Amino acid sequence: MTICSLTYDLNDRVYSTGMPPASQPARRTRDPEAKRVAILAAAREEFAEHGFAGATIRAIARRAGVTHGLVMLHFSSKEQLFLAAVPGTRDLTGTVEGGLDGLPERVATAFVQRMESADGADPFIALVRSAGDQEAARALLRAMARESAAAYREVLTGPDVEARVELVGALLIGVTFSRYVTGDGELAAMPADRLIPYLAEALAAFLR
Amino acid sequence: MTICSLTYDLNDRVYSTGMPPASQPARRTRDPEAKRVAILAAAREEFAEHGFAGATIRAIARRAGVTHGLVMLHFSSKEQLFLAAVPGTRDLTGTVEGGLDGLPERVATAFVQRMESADGADPFIALVRSAGDQEAARALLRAMARESAAAYREVLTGPDVEARVELVGALLIGVTFSRYVTGDGELAAMPADRLIPYLAEALAAFLR
Repeated sequence: MTICSLTYDLNDRVYSTGMPPASQPARRTRDPEAKRVAILAAAREEFAEHGFAGATIRAIARRAGVTHGLVMLHFSSKEQLFLAAVPGTRDLTGTVEGGLDGLPERVATAFVQRMESADGADPFIALVRSAGDQEAARALLRAMARESAAAYREVLTGPDVEARVELVGALLIGVTFSRYVTGDGELAAMPADRLIPYLAEALAAFLR
Repeated sequence: MTICSLTYDLNDRVYSTGMPPASQPARRTRDPEAKRVAILAAAREEFAEHGFAGATIRAIARRAGVTHGLVMLHFSSKEQLFLAAVPGTRDLTGTVEGGLDGLPERVATAFVQRMESADGADPFIALVRSAGDQEAARALLRAMARESAAAYREVLTGPDVEARVELVGALLIGVTFSRYVTGDGELAAMPADRLIPYLAEALAAFLR
């Protein structure tokens, strides 16, 4: 909690220049992009701490030092905010761009590097923690699959593209669960550079 | 709920011959194996409905029509009872027996067939639903990985056997999440006989 407060004090200074937003409405729109970045950072922490179902737009706005209305203006729903905050689906276009050749290796590398640097505060983790809430998990998975399929459809060939994209998601969700949520055992202890080749080889069954 | 009550009324008749166990202690040990089977069936339903963290030995005993003490006598802990009720880890010895040749296909087939027939009431699903409770999820994963590794160690060769066994678990957990817990999308809609070859090919990256 101390670390989180510190982070947000810093964010507040960087993005909100320390001004309480409610009393200084003019400040709020001075740098919309900085506010957007602050909201995304706040969302990542809120989702990681409380899961998708437990997180609220109001708490995210408070963390980011902005109003509830500004969050809705930027992202329109909690689900859309979640997707915007998941680097995995947003960065996928760049990962896919190189084409089919070497795609499993690039996806495995991008996933592991993102998760290693997320340090527990990643919405992928929030998704796994939401597994007990069937409605929340379903809405999230559907939205993530839609975004991922749109990117992968550019390069994947053959039948079952949507189902294979969901199998990619299933493997990465399972690894998130075992390595990053429970954080225990041999899979959690394995160095990233040993894990990536195994993941890449398995992903090759779906990404072709 | 009606279906569950009906099931347990039937179980009660079959396994407990309808006698209230508390008032008829002599009946309780007349057929220990039948009682054990009744406890396992009750555990599967209780874990599927409430997750590992939410299930209690007391509720499982009540469903099975036996005492709390008898459940502990048979299984000693909730974790041990969970493992005994997961067909996946118990049946693994049979699946592994044929050796490395065709092992990924046998594991994929056994998993899908078990999940299709489980009809939602499977402890694998309870494990996924326990993801929000880090301590419960960790204890379960550790115990399942230990049992699985013991079976796979007989046939797998090369380095990272424990980590690769956990990667097998990760893929199956992810598929459970996407196909059986959220039950939505193209992966959930895919016929079992189309899914199995994809799973087998991915599992071959870990099972060798």
